[in-house]
Amino acid sequence: MYLFAPPAAMLQAAEVEMGQQYLGLVLAISVLSLGVAVLFSRYVLSQDTGTPQMQKISNAIKEGAEAFLRRQNRTIVWLAAAVAIIIYAGYAFLKGDATLAVRMTVSFVIGAACSLAAGFSGMWVSIRSNIRVASAARTDLNRALQIALRGGAVTGLSVVALSLLGVGILFWVFGGLADPQKVPHQILAFGFGASFVALFAQLGGGIYTKAADVGADLVGKVEAGIPEDDPRNPAVIADLVGDNVGDCAGRGADLFESTAAENIGAMVLGVALYPVFGLKGILFPLMARAFGLIASIIGVLFVKVKGDEDPMKSLNRGYLVTTVAALGGFYAAVQLLLQGNMHLFAAGVIGIITSFLFVWITQYYTEYRYRPVQEIAKSCTTGPATTIITGFAVALECTALPVLVISAAILSSYYLGTNAGLAVPAQAAGLYGTAIATMGMLSTAAYILAMDTFGPITDNAGGIVEMSRQPEEARKRTDRLDSVGNTTKALTKGYAIGSAALAAFLLFSAYKDEVKTLLGKGPDFEFPIDIGNVPVFTGALLGAMLVFLFSALAIRAVGRTAQTVIEEVRRQFRENKGIMEGTADPDYGTCVDLVAKAALKAMVLPGLLPVAGPVLVGVIFRYFSGPNDVAPVGATSVAALLMVGTITGILLATMMNNGGGAWDNAKKYIETGALGGKGSDAHKASVVGDTVGDPFKDTAGPSLHVLIKLLSTITLVAAPLFI
Amino acid sequence: MYLFAPPAAMLQAAEVEMGQQYLGLVLAISVLSLGVAVLFSRYVLSQDTGTPQMQKISNAIKEGAEAFLRRQNRTIVWLAAAVAIIIYAGYAFLKGDATLAVRMTVSFVIGAACSLAAGFSGMWVSIRSNIRVASAARTDLNRALQIALRGGAVTGLSVVALSLLGVGILFWVFGGLADPQKVPHQILAFGFGASFVALFAQLGGGIYTKAADVGADLVGKVEAGIPEDDPRNPAVIADLVGDNVGDCAGRGADLFESTAAENIGAMVLGVALYPVFGLKGILFPLMARAFGLIASIIGVLFVKVKGDEDPMKSLNRGYLVTTVAALGGFYAAVQLLLQGNMHLFAAGVIGIITSFLFVWITQYYTEYRYRPVQEIAKSCTTGPATTIITGFAVALECTALPVLVISAAILSSYYLGTNAGLAVPAQAAGLYGTAIATMGMLSTAAYILAMDTFGPITDNAGGIVEMSRQPEEARKRTDRLDSVGNTTKALTKGYAIGSAALAAFLLFSAYKDEVKTLLGKGPDFEFPIDIGNVPVFTGALLGAMLVFLFSALAIRAVGRTAQTVIEEVRRQFRENKGIMEGTADPDYGTCVDLVAKAALKAMVLPGLLPVAGPVLVGVIFRYFSGPNDVAPVGATSVAALLMVGTITGILLATMMNNGGGAWDNAKKYIETGALGGKGSDAHKASVVGDTVGDPFKDTAGPSLHVLIKLLSTITLVAAPLFI
Repeated sequence: MYLFAPPAAMLQAAEVEMGQQYLGLVLAISVLSLGVAVLFSRYVLSQDTGTPQMQKISNAIKEGAEAFLRRQNRTIVWLAAAVAIIIYAGYAFLKGDATLAVRMTVSFVIGAACSLAAGFSGMWVSIRSNIRVASAARTDLNRALQIALRGGAVTGLSVVALSLLGVGILFWVFGGLADPQKVPHQILAFGFGASFVALFAQLGGGIYTKAADVGADLVGKVEAGIPEDDPRNPAVIADLVGDNVGDCAGRGADLFESTAAENIGAMVLGVALYPVFGLKGILFPLMARAFGLIASIIGVLFVKVKGDEDPMKSLNRGYLVTTVAALGGFYAAVQLLLQGNMHLFAAGVIGIITSFLFVWITQYYTEYRYRPVQEIAKSCTTGPATTIITGFAVALECTALPVLVISAAILSSYYLGTNAGLAVPAQAAGLYGTAIATMGMLSTAAYILAMDTFGPITDNAGGIVEMSRQPEEARKRTDRLDSVGNTTKALTKGYAIGSAALAAFLLFSAYKDEVKTLLGKGPDFEFPIDIGNVPVFTGALLGAMLVFLFSALAIRAVGRTAQTVIEEVRRQFRENKGIMEGTADPDYGTCVDLVAKAALKAMVLPGLLPVAGPVLVGVIFRYFSGPNDVAPVGATSVAALLMVGTITGILLATMMNNGGGAWDNAKKYIETGALGGKGSDAHKASVVGDTVGDPFKDTAGPSLHVLIKLLSTITLVAAPLFI
Repeated sequence: MYLFAPPAAMLQAAEVEMGQQYLGLVLAISVLSLGVAVLFSRYVLSQDTGTPQMQKISNAIKEGAEAFLRRQNRTIVWLAAAVAIIIYAGYAFLKGDATLAVRMTVSFVIGAACSLAAGFSGMWVSIRSNIRVASAARTDLNRALQIALRGGAVTGLSVVALSLLGVGILFWVFGGLADPQKVPHQILAFGFGASFVALFAQLGGGIYTKAADVGADLVGKVEAGIPEDDPRNPAVIADLVGDNVGDCAGRGADLFESTAAENIGAMVLGVALYPVFGLKGILFPLMARAFGLIASIIGVLFVKVKGDEDPMKSLNRGYLVTTVAALGGFYAAVQLLLQGNMHLFAAGVIGIITSFLFVWITQYYTEYRYRPVQEIAKSCTTGPATTIITGFAVALECTALPVLVISAAILSSYYLGTNAGLAVPAQAAGLYGTAIATMGMLSTAAYILAMDTFGPITDNAGGIVEMSRQPEEARKRTDRLDSVGNTTKALTKGYAIGSAALAAFLLFSAYKDEVKTLLGKGPDFEFPIDIGNVPVFTGALLGAMLVFLFSALAIRAVGRTAQTVIEEVRRQFRENKGIMEGTADPDYGTCVDLVAKAALKAMVLPGLLPVAGPVLVGVIFRYFSGPNDVAPVGATSVAALLMVGTITGILLATMMNNGGGAWDNAKKYIETGALGGKGSDAHKASVVGDTVGDPFKDTAGPSLHVLIKLLSTITLVAAPLFI
């Protein structure tokens, strides 16, 4: 239908030129940031790589991780190719629009490819950083911290820069400067490609990491009675590989797709503001993110441990610097592109405050200084059953504050938008307000992501130090970094879910816009997503169910894959007595290989569910449309599925992320010597809690972040089928 | 506003007379059913009460249960009195409508009183049945079964009959026969009163029963190493008391309020059908339930164990007879009152099929013959952590089929309604179709409730047999009955949640009708609950959060109260060494007393949350209304809170009920000797799973049933505040 639309009104040459300058600036900053990422990785690679034994272990991790990623990417490429063909065929033959078909398919493929690249680059540098951090930890805590953070920053910067480059270039190439009101819709498939890849990356990696972890722990610690990271455990390398493929590659893809989907969603909302800001309103999201990149680079450079200070303090200092710089950048972007509208700037500030509050709430629920973890730790003294009951109560409870914060943020940014004096309908202005708040929240994303990748790097460094039997001193340093890494990983998840919630509205609105366009209606046309209507309510019910079922499949996949690990380790112990005596090396490779195969098999079913589910509902519910519907019921039922699925996803993900984190830290608290310390019954109960929390916080929870975005992008791309 | 409305159009005298006849028939059947309940309790009371030692134990249970209920009722009466005053003051002074204020307050008070009476009568007979079942089990399985079922039937019949009597008499006294279009709205507060009491009864009882159970198990089985129901455990009587106050009194109040709320909701929908069916359409729900009562009595009389057959089989036979009889009664009611409309009859049949499917799905997920429980049992062999992980995956998964069934039932009954050829708007006809389906599903409610109360009676009988050290033979018989009781309890929960889901739409529509009336609009006025609107979406998000927070508070209350039990039992063991040696009796009374106090304190906060939450949202969100709203945003946001809260509640309740049941039966499966049997490590892990499942399936899950209804009824009553 785009093909036969009347040619777009050509803009004044001056405005196109202005657009070129701004877009050029965005792309330049992105390329510059990639350059900084290269410098950071040079810095990391120039560091010392320790003893030959450390290298041996590090190489084993590297090989295992790269082999898994190659294999996983092969599976994902096949799945993505199938989807690309379906998209092309759907748009070319069913809709009969060849131009749009090509643009959608190209966007999808590039989105998918960038997502793969983001995941790969994150992991590439992290598996090279771990040994260097381990080596530095033998002598210098500050250098170890800097290597780990800069290794993490490579991921953070590449992810955000790649997404800006992808979206920016597609926008330019598709003629967005000349026809800015239509092109944002055409690159929506970029977001879908990114989410599609991210879902499988996060699922595959998440299943791998937790199956290896749970399996190694159960058979090693519980059955054989050997400590964590003991080189006699045949699954120990698989466990370390898991940290990289799950936390680095998976999370990299996850945050890449968040960034991509939210950028495009905000641009689509900018289209509604075209009468006020013109092209500038559409480019604003990209510019705000670009300035955020610069702020993050400044923040990373500021991190330095002073004397014997807590490393978390210096990371927090860096975060504060990033936030202040981002605030400045945001102000500049509002001045440049949004006519210095202070209401919209205030909406951005709300976003930044929201990210601060999320970081604080996550700390409250997952750090052992506060009531919730203390409560769980205390309940460990009465055994594993009360540990789980109390932990589950905390997990359910910890959804309340984030929801209140998000509700306040959405409402206040919405009303700031409607009161910003913009000459567009109140609804559009309000939604643009929430989009600006989302951009505010995401302006520090690169720094947050750097802190996140810091986690698995230090975790691996600790493993290498332990396995190569380095002196106690070194182990203590990596332990300190590792415990900081646990906190930063939890924070990122809180941040990711907060931004997903705030951004949810961007993507809902993009979907509604898409439906309006497909119905051939103008911007004044409004249709309600009326859940008081029976089929629409049913769509909502099915959306919530989809999220529960997806979580069930993800968690069960971990259980089943862990079973594979357990059986393999038992076999090795049985067939080669020398392993436990320390006279023979276990066969790490077979374990690595087996988990990889099992995890890849297990990820397909949960991965296809959120793709097929909404499409099926939309196609079936078409037939429930009545003559009095404002919009076809197929389309509105899918919207309800999307919205209520998102709500349920936000709650379940928060529950699983924080619950898992709280159990983990209750164990850590007891290991500091409290309530009987290591080896006590309370400690044993806390280990059960930690193990239960593992698939919650590292498989199902993070996969739900992606699921939320994927629901939005799949419905956007498949919308023509519902009408 | 009702007071100043024009006087209602008077109906023809003939129609009033016809209404009197039908309503008279409903009331007569209800009174008759109460008479049958009296006969059943006479039958129970005429049975032998066993040995003096059995009587001693039974009396201790009776005293404890009655003392708790008295104390609980006192708390509830105070809370209800406060709410009654608020309702009166609100309607009399804020709305300035004295007549309506009186009617609302009277309805609320009578609803609350009937709910208290239903809970009390259920428990009264069940604490008298347990000892008689125990005594009969010494010689005759069939008689034990019949005593237990007839004891249960007293609850089932009284609950349904009381709700019909309450609603029917209020309708009559308020002049419903002369003015049938207005009066159903005026008795909505009856449902709120019933739900309000039920929530506290279910919460208080649920916390009591599981705190006592968990506490007794942890300190008895785990710490002291004595078996379940051992008379040396000071908490053992409290545990048995808990079964009565939680499962009997709590569930009785729960199903009373379901029945009440759904009857009134269906009557309100009947008002929309007034042009077609007149008064008959409004009376139909009551008539269908009355016929269902007769069907249930027939079913109960049919239950008899033949030879050595599985008692479950004979209960299922009774259920089948009830269903067939209910089908016949439903057909008669459709012929009498709905012009023999076969589309509407078909909708009723869909309801009956839905209840069958729910019973089947619940069995699949909670009985050990099937895959899910087998999977959990297998995971017990690798320790408590995998037990919990697998169980949790099963719990999440088991939401899928029920949601699919409910979606199909809602959609098909809706479209049967729209195609029934009724001369009203399609929406109203469709909703009436879903109301008819709900009535179909609920027509067997009294029988299901009888099966449910059967559970705690046999559980108690087993406890009495064990504690009074009866011969092995008797214990075996009560064990068989007890295991059947576990299944029937799980089935009822599935049934309760299924009917709550199906009925959800009744209550949503009643709320929308109420808002229309408050806005002074006619039946043609429609307003969307548009979750694409920012404040409305926020309301939905808060609704989902409310359900999570409520569950957190309920589960945590169990944990904290159990702690009280543990400390008390430890104190008694410490201070009186004779207890463990068997030379001194433990002080059961103090335990019973302590749990009662702690449970009543713990129920207040979770109980007030769903009352205060929706009111707060509605009052605050009033201020977000804009000039273009079809209906005030306060009212629509509360509707979204209600609907999405209901969806989330249905999913979480299903997850907790079935998850808890599956863990329980995985333990029972291992106790049959599988996977190592009693005492093995797998068994220990399965005990952890069972304990975790306890507060899920007996506290939070059932309380969520009530919460769902309470959200509907509180919003209905508080609606004037939101506009």
